[in-house]
Amino acid sequence: MSKQILILPGDGIGPEIIQQAVKVLECVNQRFALNYQWHFDSIGGAAYEQYGTPLADSTLQKARQADAVLLGAVGGPQWDNIEPALRPERGLLKIRAELGLFANLRPAILYPQLADASSLKAEIVAALDLLIVRELTGGIYFGKPRGQEVLASGERKAFDTLPYSESEIRRIGKVGFEMARLRGKKLCSVDKANVLASSQLWRAVMNELAADYLDVQLSHMYVDNAAMQLVRAPKQFDVIVTDNLFGDILSDQAAMLTGSIGMLPSASLDANNKGMYEPCHGSAPDIAGKGIANPLATILSLAMMLRYSFAELQAANAIEAAVGKVLDAGLRTADIAKAEASSVSCAQMGSAVVEAL
Amino acid sequence: MSKQILILPGDGIGPEIIQQAVKVLECVNQRFALNYQWHFDSIGGAAYEQYGTPLADSTLQKARQADAVLLGAVGGPQWDNIEPALRPERGLLKIRAELGLFANLRPAILYPQLADASSLKAEIVAALDLLIVRELTGGIYFGKPRGQEVLASGERKAFDTLPYSESEIRRIGKVGFEMARLRGKKLCSVDKANVLASSQLWRAVMNELAADYLDVQLSHMYVDNAAMQLVRAPKQFDVIVTDNLFGDILSDQAAMLTGSIGMLPSASLDANNKGMYEPCHGSAPDIAGKGIANPLATILSLAMMLRYSFAELQAANAIEAAVGKVLDAGLRTADIAKAEASSVSCAQMGSAVVEAL
Ligand SMILES: CC(C)[C@H](C(=O)O)[C@@H](O)C(=O)O
Ligand SMILES: CC(C)[C@H](C(=O)O)[C@@H](O)C(=O)O
Repeated sequence: MSKQILILPGDGIGPEIIQQAVKVLECVNQRFALNYQWHFDSIGGAAYEQYGTPLADSTLQKARQADAVLLGAVGGPQWDNIEPALRPERGLLKIRAELGLFANLRPAILYPQLADASSLKAEIVAALDLLIVRELTGGIYFGKPRGQEVLASGERKAFDTLPYSESEIRRIGKVGFEMARLRGKKLCSVDKANVLASSQLWRAVMNELAADYLDVQLSHMYVDNAAMQLVRAPKQFDVIVTDNLFGDILSDQAAMLTGSIGMLPSASLDANNKGMYEPCHGSAPDIAGKGIANPLATILSLAMMLRYSFAELQAANAIEAAVGKVLDAGLRTADIAKAEASSVSCAQMGSAVVEAL
Repeated sequence: MSKQILILPGDGIGPEIIQQAVKVLECVNQRFALNYQWHFDSIGGAAYEQYGTPLADSTLQKARQADAVLLGAVGGPQWDNIEPALRPERGLLKIRAELGLFANLRPAILYPQLADASSLKAEIVAALDLLIVRELTGGIYFGKPRGQEVLASGERKAFDTLPYSESEIRRIGKVGFEMARLRGKKLCSVDKANVLASSQLWRAVMNELAADYLDVQLSHMYVDNAAMQLVRAPKQFDVIVTDNLFGDILSDQAAMLTGSIGMLPSASLDANNKGMYEPCHGSAPDIAGKGIANPLATILSLAMMLRYSFAELQAANAIEAAVGKVLDAGLRTADIAKAEASSVSCAQMGSAVVEAL
């Protein structure tokens, strides 16, 4: 049976960048005789407008049945003032949780063609290639109890809970070790074990796992130090594994070290490598509809899908090589161009990748 | 009655750097006829060795009676494997909580003399001068319940709680607005209100406070975006106000943007501006006892004490000017020197500041 892909363009620049990724998908589908099928649905603000909820049950149902999901981005100022439970981000959190996508892979790679874009000195970031493995379905993002109450004094009080169980830590820890094994064999586990009980268990479980991965060198770092080291000497890292909240912060920081977040894809996987793939950047409402967004992160997310969910390494490599070629040829969307005048549109960039394929 | 200062050298390089700050204290005490008195006690690992606990009740008692506390640093590998409740950091957390030091001021300033030290490009960080106001006695650092349990399945589970009450948020928010008023009149409140209940209350209270500070421009930013913006364009910030955990991470990241964390002081204040002053850097066990640590962050922490707790602006300015002078003269400890050969010792640096005074 042919593989099914659910495509969720979402909000802001989501539809534009997805359109380009679909052009690339059509091209590889034919060239590599993949025989994939895909269909579209809504998430985030778009789903709120269409279904009254940021993730409709029918959409979730389709996502469950699909073999992989390709997502654009969610969010925008027009939904800033609706009830928290109906905000666009809730759709994203819900699909992650419902599909059990606990392993979020966020590479931070500096493309040599874009070395100047970084705000860091060239020698600090040249050839940067690190991978952040973020736990995505647990921790303070989903912990109960949470909420707001009014104290006897009339004062409001709000609270969240940060829980982690041994099995939740173990399964993400394993992904960290496995990824390190495929790369530079160095894994840095980031926590705040000098303060948090959850981090103390996190560290203990990572140490237990290390016995099964003697070929991987495990180290531990406090999150505040990790934020410093990413600024000071990011190339010391190979793979970082960390919890949901720390991973949110550190992966965005690491992405920005490259100066070209418009280039960075991500994958969110379940226990069977079924996954959702999306660019690291957001919905960029300020430039939505202008046709100037960078579609490469989404196109590279498609390559990740072919690699991780479908093991089509040849097709994945071909897409990545095509992206390299258009960069070599000097094509730049506005976000990565030196002078805006010389930049190409979102659609031109998509077509160039198709051509290079 | 003369002002009383409690000095807690702590661990690692703590005693060395404190010794230099005391030389400076002796000097200003005389030159400005301050008539201060000071005495010493232990905290952290040193207190664990002396008293069997990282903060003895008798020490806490002295801290309560003092008008200000000057701290070196705590922690070291020799205490890594003792019971969590007795670790050096616990002494630090306890003194913060017991003295009600809820307002942690962490400046990130790039000294023009040390502009090269940053890993960021010169134009990105030149003249950087931002202040992080971190909530220090609440949130997930102290929230209950916390701990570890064994589930029926035999699996371990750990959890922490992140609580904030309206009054806790309001008092730190006020400090943020007041500091912004004294500076560039821009306050950025950092939270994760798209996910956390505590952040939603945080944001609501900040918005309420804004009505009392119409001369200050308030903005809100998610913590993941703040970590990105600090890398991309740190000079967009004037004052950042945020919670205990986000403040821990972002203040370390911001400090490292300058490349010379050995230069950065901090203050932790209670509701009456009684405070504890300490360098931003840690106890650096790897260089402890070698006499090469940089005492300037501790000396500048003393200047903060004179400014915030004792309103001795002249003496504070004199110390800061003296530090500027020794930097102008080219004196560098190893951490900020270009070539190690040309660096001065910790004691030489302290003496140079005294001389410049
Ligand atoms: C939109 C938001 C809820 C989300 C998160 O915090 O996980 C985003 O920042 C991300 O990193 O994918
Ligand atoms: C030592 C540790 C408990 C402490 C903290 O997390 O607050 C330190 O990192 C700091 O920022 O002062």
